[in-house]
Amino acid sequence: MIVLFTDFGLEGPYVGQMKAVLHHAAPGVPQVDLMADAPAFDARAAAYLLAAYAPAFPQGSVFLAVVDPGVGGARLPLGVEAGGQMFVGPDNGLLALAARRAEAARAWQVTWRPARLSASFHGRDLFAPVAARLARGGEPPGAPSPVADMAGADWPDDLAEIVYLDRFGNAVTGLRADRLPHDAVLRAGGRRLERARTFSEVAAGTAFWYENANGLAEIAANQARADHLLGLEVGDPVELAREPRASDD
Amino acid sequence: MIVLFTDFGLEGPYVGQMKAVLHHAAPGVPQVDLMADAPAFDARAAAYLLAAYAPAFPQGSVFLAVVDPGVGGARLPLGVEAGGQMFVGPDNGLLALAARRAEAARAWQVTWRPARLSASFHGRDLFAPVAARLARGGEPPGAPSPVADMAGADWPDDLAEIVYLDRFGNAVTGLRADRLPHDAVLRAGGRRLERARTFSEVAAGTAFWYENANGLAEIAANQARADHLLGLEVGDPVELAREPRASDD
Amino acid sequence: MIVLFTDFGLEGPYVGQMKAVLHHAAPGVPQVDLMADAPAFDARAAAYLLAAYAPAFPQGSVFLAVVDPGVGGARLPLGVEAGGQMFVGPDNGLLALAARRAEAARAWQVTWRPARLSASFHGRDLFAPVAARLARGGEPPGAPSPVADMAGADWPDDLAEIVYLDRFGNAVTGLRADRLPHDAVLRAGGRRLERARTFSEVAAGTAFWYENANGLAEIAANQARADHLLGLEVGDPVELAREPRASDD
Repeated sequence: MIVLFTDFGLEGPYVGQMKAVLHHAAPGVPQVDLMADAPAFDARAAAYLLAAYAPAFPQGSVFLAVVDPGVGGARLPLGVEAGGQMFVGPDNGLLALAARRAEAARAWQVTWRPARLSASFHGRDLFAPVAARLARGGEPPGAPSPVADMAGADWPDDLAEIVYLDRFGNAVTGLRADRLPHDAVLRAGGRRLERARTFSEVAAGTAFWYENANGLAEIAANQARADHLLGLEVGDPVELAREPRASDD
Repeated sequence: MIVLFTDFGLEGPYVGQMKAVLHHAAPGVPQVDLMADAPAFDARAAAYLLAAYAPAFPQGSVFLAVVDPGVGGARLPLGVEAGGQMFVGPDNGLLALAARRAEAARAWQVTWRPARLSASFHGRDLFAPVAARLARGGEPPGAPSPVADMAGADWPDDLAEIVYLDRFGNAVTGLRADRLPHDAVLRAGGRRLERARTFSEVAAGTAFWYENANGLAEIAANQARADHLLGLEVGDPVELAREPRASDD
Repeated sequence: MIVLFTDFGLEGPYVGQMKAVLHHAAPGVPQVDLMADAPAFDARAAAYLLAAYAPAFPQGSVFLAVVDPGVGGARLPLGVEAGGQMFVGPDNGLLALAARRAEAARAWQVTWRPARLSASFHGRDLFAPVAARLARGGEPPGAPSPVADMAGADWPDDLAEIVYLDRFGNAVTGLRADRLPHDAVLRAGGRRLERARTFSEVAAGTAFWYENANGLAEIAANQARADHLLGLEVGDPVELAREPRASDD
């Protein structure tokens, strides 16, 4: 399957034009919209989301990932094989964490260019045709390139920031829960947040953190919007509080 | 076909992860997004929508319905066969009206559990695999259970409330139009609303009600947003006015 | 493939019900969402978008286009063959520019009516079944009708207005860039806008215009929302400034 991961939105004309290219060039391959609301223009936050979501998809999945504020500029297109899955996207760090977390990863600079390449929509003109080629079993049309040279190589293994706000107001962090002390207390929006297993374990209106269904630490509130309650936005820092179990401030 | 009915939104990561499971476990079965903006956390309002939309879908359709504020709590997963269609979802009333309105319905408590069940995303981990199994012709993996025991058994046959606001500001009620007197006058948002056949029958800016394309009484306004005009929200009451044809107030 | 172009939104129940009809009546034909956020009730603005997007889709594509404020009124359903593609939609001008720009176009008044035609949802009951028939290779079920008689025949070849705001705040005009002088200066929202090739060519926060990936002149700003910066809305006029290269005001 081809999995689309973008900040393009679904209702406007961008994802549909990419899918038309995919249907034409890789007929019969299922297309799945993973996210169309990745943090806009924020390849770094998006990289931690993509790396968290990808492993649950089947081996052989091709991820067409486009969060690309530099379109039309100097950054290069990349193909990456990581953990038995393929990724296509801009070399701006978006694919960095997916590559780093795999046991083995390979990268290619995509040197192929379409006959017609618009200045602003490489998702349709360049990345989608490459994704279709990979979905048909081909290799990235370009030259192997060291994984260590990918943009984002200097980013941390986990990102202590809010990377996504979902439609319910839950605030996803770039921290993997299994890398945190089990009883870790987080601090975000000026508030101490204790861990719970899920929403129904805490009182209504109480904010907490939990391991979400993709393994990330997520800040939520029972029957309330955590983003409003704590004033959280994408990019806000999340700290590991020094003194778990201390009295709240 | 598998029909998805949720309050998850399409752009975020939830529906896509469910669809990946469906593609993997029921390859080749068409997937249709019926609603991804069902009233959030409101299984009761959603139940009247689902019951109104389902009958127009083909026999054999499988509805994967998740509006599930109690995820991680005590409610059970259900499978329901009603009117030649199958439904999978939480036992919180969401499936109650679809079952009640069918000539014959059967229910199962789904006792199967996946090897990995997250605390917060049963749509992906539990309901989607069951829907895929049904789409392949299987039975709900569990024990038959009396329909009368389903949550929501005490809800009314029609719900005199606003159950949905669409993107145009039309306010859908939980009332079936063919159960109302033909010239019924409704009252909502403090206003008397007469029946029209459709938008172009009334003056611009005038609010009215009509039988929508799924048989529900819907409050609308010609070339205006009824929700703003009347100050309507999901859950607001709708009354059958006592004196049709009386002068407006 | 069947390409959906509407102002219905994707999350609500309308597009999904149309797709269910298409899956049932044209099984196996790919369905692509081109736009679900066409300017609401604005067939004129939408017509210039549809005409700009359609040519990049494969020959034989069937466009199911519904922006239909007059549903339930007197306007007729149309089928159009233009440039090797088929279009189905209301005769309110929505298909006019796609027909006009093709080297050869034919039109049909669709006289077929379904057994059950709701007053408010012709997209599902009438247009979708016709689109499915065309996708299976049939002709529009009706009578040939002169293209010159289509609504919108008196609209201009290019529309000097904002026809769409995308999710990033870019403002698409109804002007084809290749019909403008190469160094044309546009005026919108009281501001002079010079041409750039793409975003990264101008300073952050600077508004400009460029030829977008579908050949339309589009007003944008580097790392900012052009719609907010210039106070633009759909329908706002765009002028060709008299004195290119003059000093800014």
